[in-house]
Amino acid sequence: MKKKTVEASKICIGNLMEPQQANISGNVHGGEIMKLMDNTAGIVAHRHARSNTVTARVDGLEFIKPIHIGNLVTFEGRLTFVGKSSMEVLVEVYVEDLEVENSKSLALTGYFTMVALDEKEGPKKVPELLTEGPDEEKLFLEGKKRYLARKNR
Amino acid sequence: MKKKTVEASKICIGNLMEPQQANISGNVHGGEIMKLMDNTAGIVAHRHARSNTVTARVDGLEFIKPIHIGNLVTFEGRLTFVGKSSMEVLVEVYVEDLEVENSKSLALTGYFTMVALDEKEGPKKVPELLTEGPDEEKLFLEGKKRYLARKNR
Amino acid sequence: MKKKTVEASKICIGNLMEPQQANISGNVHGGEIMKLMDNTAGIVAHRHARSNTVTARVDGLEFIKPIHIGNLVTFEGRLTFVGKSSMEVLVEVYVEDLEVENSKSLALTGYFTMVALDEKEGPKKVPELLTEGPDEEKLFLEGKKRYLARKNR
Amino acid sequence: MKKKTVEASKICIGNLMEPQQANISGNVHGGEIMKLMDNTAGIVAHRHARSNTVTARVDGLEFIKPIHIGNLVTFEGRLTFVGKSSMEVLVEVYVEDLEVENSKSLALTGYFTMVALDEKEGPKKVPELLTEGPDEEKLFLEGKKRYLARKNR
Amino acid sequence: MKKKTVEASKICIGNLMEPQQANISGNVHGGEIMKLMDNTAGIVAHRHARSNTVTARVDGLEFIKPIHIGNLVTFEGRLTFVGKSSMEVLVEVYVEDLEVENSKSLALTGYFTMVALDEKEGPKKVPELLTEGPDEEKLFLEGKKRYLARKNR
Amino acid sequence: MKKKTVEASKICIGNLMEPQQANISGNVHGGEIMKLMDNTAGIVAHRHARSNTVTARVDGLEFIKPIHIGNLVTFEGRLTFVGKSSMEVLVEVYVEDLEVENSKSLALTGYFTMVALDEKEGPKKVPELLTEGPDEEKLFLEGKKRYLARKNR
Repeated sequence: MKKKTVEASKICIGNLMEPQQANISGNVHGGEIMKLMDNTAGIVAHRHARSNTVTARVDGLEFIKPIHIGNLVTFEGRLTFVGKSSMEVLVEVYVEDLEVENSKSLALTGYFTMVALDEKEGPKKVPELLTEGPDEEKLFLEGKKRYLARKNR
Repeated sequence: MKKKTVEASKICIGNLMEPQQANISGNVHGGEIMKLMDNTAGIVAHRHARSNTVTARVDGLEFIKPIHIGNLVTFEGRLTFVGKSSMEVLVEVYVEDLEVENSKSLALTGYFTMVALDEKEGPKKVPELLTEGPDEEKLFLEGKKRYLARKNR
Repeated sequence: MKKKTVEASKICIGNLMEPQQANISGNVHGGEIMKLMDNTAGIVAHRHARSNTVTARVDGLEFIKPIHIGNLVTFEGRLTFVGKSSMEVLVEVYVEDLEVENSKSLALTGYFTMVALDEKEGPKKVPELLTEGPDEEKLFLEGKKRYLARKNR
Repeated sequence: MKKKTVEASKICIGNLMEPQQANISGNVHGGEIMKLMDNTAGIVAHRHARSNTVTARVDGLEFIKPIHIGNLVTFEGRLTFVGKSSMEVLVEVYVEDLEVENSKSLALTGYFTMVALDEKEGPKKVPELLTEGPDEEKLFLEGKKRYLARKNR
Repeated sequence: MKKKTVEASKICIGNLMEPQQANISGNVHGGEIMKLMDNTAGIVAHRHARSNTVTARVDGLEFIKPIHIGNLVTFEGRLTFVGKSSMEVLVEVYVEDLEVENSKSLALTGYFTMVALDEKEGPKKVPELLTEGPDEEKLFLEGKKRYLARKNR
Repeated sequence: MKKKTVEASKICIGNLMEPQQANISGNVHGGEIMKLMDNTAGIVAHRHARSNTVTARVDGLEFIKPIHIGNLVTFEGRLTFVGKSSMEVLVEVYVEDLEVENSKSLALTGYFTMVALDEKEGPKKVPELLTEGPDEEKLFLEGKKRYLARKNR
């Protein structure tokens, strides 16, 4: 299998936060955001593996600032580390107040570990990850460390 | 009010089509797509006017190919023409099958006419549009023609 | 195939607008209305063709007045013109404030072009339209003009 | 307060049953039908009282035949009996298979008791009911019997 | 088939009431509550019959107090009476204001009659009900009375 | 402020997984589960603090087995550690196949860090946690370790 770059599966999806996504405080429900982060991670993994995938773990999900109804929210997902059939996706969530110029800021980050599945729902080998530049290399090494730590437990 | 470019309010939002968006045939409900196109047009208009906006008209909405559950759908919106308080947004919808490399293709287009509102829900003056390059100029002239034709009716 | 009247497939569906259908301004989301208009057009076309149908085009969708949560909204759909496998449906949307006597008024209109599909998802021949009275005849001729204009493009 | 007829508040609302309304067996969720019946009863009561109303009781809800995704469902609601501030609404639900001519048949019936509320959420007096013809008179007497039986308990 | 106790299929499910479940007055939609009651009854019947079931009737649904967005609502379901293939489930709904200590109180009750289905969607024999203690016996006799009254009609 | 036990805020909520909660593979969407886990953690924190709360972090969310449409899913939440205004909630998710006796098994676990908010949306002091027995004490010490590790970063 040919190695694939981070760039090749990277994705940016945006969404207008609607009243249907509110929690009981009137802000956007954290669970709705997690759902869209999960979708983002799924798209990245799906694109890398070109097969069905499932979420295996979520770690380090950190809510930095609240998201309001009517905000434009952008979900950026990219692979950090790829094992045999598992893929770690970093999802960064940005929020923008449409009434205010240049108001885009980071609202949330999280690491999603996805596993590629073959037709019998067993784990499926995925292409290796080709990192480009020092940033991608750094994220790869950190992801590998988390991957090995989990394997040893 | 300072003129604003097409680029400044342009937006690209992506979405994974989920089973909740199916119609009775099992494809994505046309109404769900229209709703997301309307959101896209609203974001573009909101960014240009920096005020609340409403949809006044939809024209030339053309379904070119069906969209399936699990597809990644990208909504690209940009201003074509701007009147006193009305803004015409061209929304192009692209569909990508995540299992297939380079499968992104045009699925739908449509023109949304949005009107900016002031605090009393009356029409509000918006910045003029600064077109850049022959493509934007051509779309502007076509939009102006549609605008004048409607005004004369 | 026996000709069928406009009356035979005409439909009137009503809906109470619920908070789940609000947009970020608190009014009913234009996309929700378009979805219900699309359903209305689909029912009319389905009844005429007695087969599955898809939306091919939407034109002249004009938002005349805003619709509020708690309003009763009535969608009236009827065929205007029928080609070989395509059917044009005029959908008129009326809104009624339940607290106010005789408050029903027109909120929206639009033309939906539907195509009947056979089992292989190809276009399927539908019964011809039998118009009754001058109103139906007038709408038929206008629809035919739009149909021929699109065909020539 | 002037008496009001059954006719004046009678309502017929239709809906296409969509995949979002399915239960785990793939048919339309009974709860979705009950929700739309409740909406129907609420519209009828709202129209009679011209004030906000709440559901107080549901009785004799009988599921006669299953409703399938893609069916057109029609909810017919009309007042049977009116007390001081309570109103009994009979809701009849009809189902139609869009692929089959003349397939409309009764799927469900139920009695909803609604109470009109004043601004402080207390019960509010509503206009008396003016029945017309023997059918409405018969339903009125049956409703009155149920009303008195509940009051005596 | 071995008799089964009330205890064996009893269930208690809880839910936080979210803004998506509001009606036009801003309280929780009665239809949403009915839907969750129907789910509760379905789980109880499914557990007793260990087969698919459908709702046949709903009786004596009494709304005792309104339920607000943000409340914790608990649905308690248990069998009262079991016929050949029909099962009557009593569903009691409790509401708790999370801001107030010991605020749990009864909001709603209702009787759901469920029917077990075999693979051909015909009625399927279910295990007899083994009541334990005078409370269960009393509910059984009352349920039997309702069952026979309906059979005689 | 009086210390409060783990028992006092502990919660168990159940839900039938419905078709509306499916992902594109037909299983229950991981995001839907995360949303319900978040609700569970919110209820526990709300009950302990008796004030509004927000989610600050999610860690160690581990998907152990897939959840299918029609399954009964039970969310058990309890406090493990409480800081000044932050509370860590362990959420365990159990899944039960209603067709199979004694099929309840662990499907998912995760740690949610919630923060209590005062009226100005600033952090609010919450009651200390009174652990009972060695299990609660062990979870408390592990939670404290995670809390201090995050504070030092």
